[in-house]
Amino acid sequence: MTGDRNHEANGAKARRSTIRDVAAQAGVSVATVSRVLAGSHPVSEQLRAKVLRVVREVDYVTNAHAKSLAGAGQLSIAMLIGDITGASFAHAAKGVEQEAASRGSLTLVGSTDLDPAREAAMVNLMREQGAGAVILIGGASDLAEHQQRMARYAKSLNAAGSHLVLCGRPPLPPEVPAITVDYDNEGGAFAMTSHLLSAGHRRILILPGVEGYTTASIRLAGYTRALEAYGMSVEPDLVVHTTYEYGEGARAVRQALERGVEFTAVFAGSDVVAAGALEALRSAGLRVPEDVSLAGYDDIPLARDLTPKLTTVHVPYEEIGRSAARLALEREPGVRGEHKHVVLGTHVVVRQSVAPPPR
Amino acid sequence: MTGDRNHEANGAKARRSTIRDVAAQAGVSVATVSRVLAGSHPVSEQLRAKVLRVVREVDYVTNAHAKSLAGAGQLSIAMLIGDITGASFAHAAKGVEQEAASRGSLTLVGSTDLDPAREAAMVNLMREQGAGAVILIGGASDLAEHQQRMARYAKSLNAAGSHLVLCGRPPLPPEVPAITVDYDNEGGAFAMTSHLLSAGHRRILILPGVEGYTTASIRLAGYTRALEAYGMSVEPDLVVHTTYEYGEGARAVRQALERGVEFTAVFAGSDVVAAGALEALRSAGLRVPEDVSLAGYDDIPLARDLTPKLTTVHVPYEEIGRSAARLALEREPGVRGEHKHVVLGTHVVVRQSVAPPPR
Repeated sequence: MTGDRNHEANGAKARRSTIRDVAAQAGVSVATVSRVLAGSHPVSEQLRAKVLRVVREVDYVTNAHAKSLAGAGQLSIAMLIGDITGASFAHAAKGVEQEAASRGSLTLVGSTDLDPAREAAMVNLMREQGAGAVILIGGASDLAEHQQRMARYAKSLNAAGSHLVLCGRPPLPPEVPAITVDYDNEGGAFAMTSHLLSAGHRRILILPGVEGYTTASIRLAGYTRALEAYGMSVEPDLVVHTTYEYGEGARAVRQALERGVEFTAVFAGSDVVAAGALEALRSAGLRVPEDVSLAGYDDIPLARDLTPKLTTVHVPYEEIGRSAARLALEREPGVRGEHKHVVLGTHVVVRQSVAPPPR
Repeated sequence: MTGDRNHEANGAKARRSTIRDVAAQAGVSVATVSRVLAGSHPVSEQLRAKVLRVVREVDYVTNAHAKSLAGAGQLSIAMLIGDITGASFAHAAKGVEQEAASRGSLTLVGSTDLDPAREAAMVNLMREQGAGAVILIGGASDLAEHQQRMARYAKSLNAAGSHLVLCGRPPLPPEVPAITVDYDNEGGAFAMTSHLLSAGHRRILILPGVEGYTTASIRLAGYTRALEAYGMSVEPDLVVHTTYEYGEGARAVRQALERGVEFTAVFAGSDVVAAGALEALRSAGLRVPEDVSLAGYDDIPLARDLTPKLTTVHVPYEEIGRSAARLALEREPGVRGEHKHVVLGTHVVVRQSVAPPPR
């Protein structure tokens, strides 16, 4: 597919030259051409001069080339995320971009700030501007309103020859023409809770996320199943709902300590929440993992940057994004979308924040 | 201005109701309506029912409302960033979004991956889709190619009634119709180097960023000016160029230690690079700040999450984004843009990673 497209481009007029043509003619790699043009990495003056000479010769980086890259001004994929500063969503967006770029397509990202009116406005905008697919990512409330809204998006996008793709959101009824790319959220929470139980922990404070949101309720279900496998049941005192913000993780742990809730481990609903919990544990004079073990969820780069390095659940955000883009772009343009549901795996990444409970 | 717009909306037909109308009619705050609709926070069943009843009554979250939010399908601001997973760019994008949203405008974000061809394709796409302004953020190479490319963008956007806004990039010649929103990069590097010098450090390893990029060369200039104020000059051994990646910070410090370069402080060109440097110092058995002091640049949330908490230079990324959006949106539509250049301040944030050098 990609090969065919390149072949076509090479056969076209000289003004449609690509970065590959420049690389071939200059006898260097595509990456080198890109570096010279971006000035983003040191290259020798000689190499730079050679590449720039070829660029001028083949008239690369012209509007004509830019247009062919942009699919003649056609927007290929639009992605909506709740908050652009959230690392997990950003990595999913990067996966979408990479997959789309490898197919010669452009991606635009919009934030909804969790405001349904803004979400609806964005979906309309994307449809009117001719996006080939609209990808929504992030947990959703269990409300019937959400399912109805999504069904409305799916129908209006399909009517316009576009597609709706949901990531990490509850699948829609089978009659709704949408693709869902999900990750094994319940399995990840089950695996991490089992990891803590097998280290000897019996009182695990869980901060599953926002109450009423699918992301949190599914994580709580995994936690519950793991406890039940040990013949235990959930203690309401040990479940604290929070948003996915740093300050909320700190607050939840501080309040649990103040209320005298006993626990030897904290299972945070995100790595950012775990960072907040770590701060609160430290402020209370508790060492991690000697006094209290700590686990996160997401496996964003922050997990590696905390001290101790955070044991967490890996969610394949980039792969979720790549799969979403692939499934969206592999559909025949204009074909009414069938219903499709894909689930990717999660796993525990063991680092240094979990140890057996103190005697 | 905003007041006028609300007044107009209230005077319009019922189907143009806004979230404010719903809040007023239900006797709750706008935030509460948003929460009920998003399902993002727990609210009482009674409150939820009331809000949803009013929503149905005023037919809120209809396509009509969505369209008015989207400016009748018109894209207001398009922002291009190098890498969507970079926290500093994401915070600038959030500032743009917030300012645009407060004016009833939508923002879309695209990544260029530092590929000039993709950048050009994106700018074309944005222009063709009628973006009112295109904001580019991130350092640029000193190459004449860059200035020429930007002048080309500015002219083609202006011809289409749109505007070019550059953030954290070198200003263009006065005849080019573009807005530049910059931050005092040199002053930030000067202030941090002075902070390290006044703590007693004389051998400061600096990792200013990518060679040939303005961001790095300006930081190096601030470092140089601070040393000169102490009657010192730059030692080439103490300057190591890196990309802004974690692994590059670790590599640079590891190699400096292997080469036997003596230093008592590291001034990293970003907080992410500082996190990598911290890891390399630790692996070499060096304590921060007892054996080696460490400073960053950016002041993203990561700085607070490192142990020790990172002393760094605060760059007002959100404010840069807000200013860029404000300046772009305050221009009269269709008016040929004048040249404008704004510079925002930076300052040192003292945390726990800098101490006097060991005896």
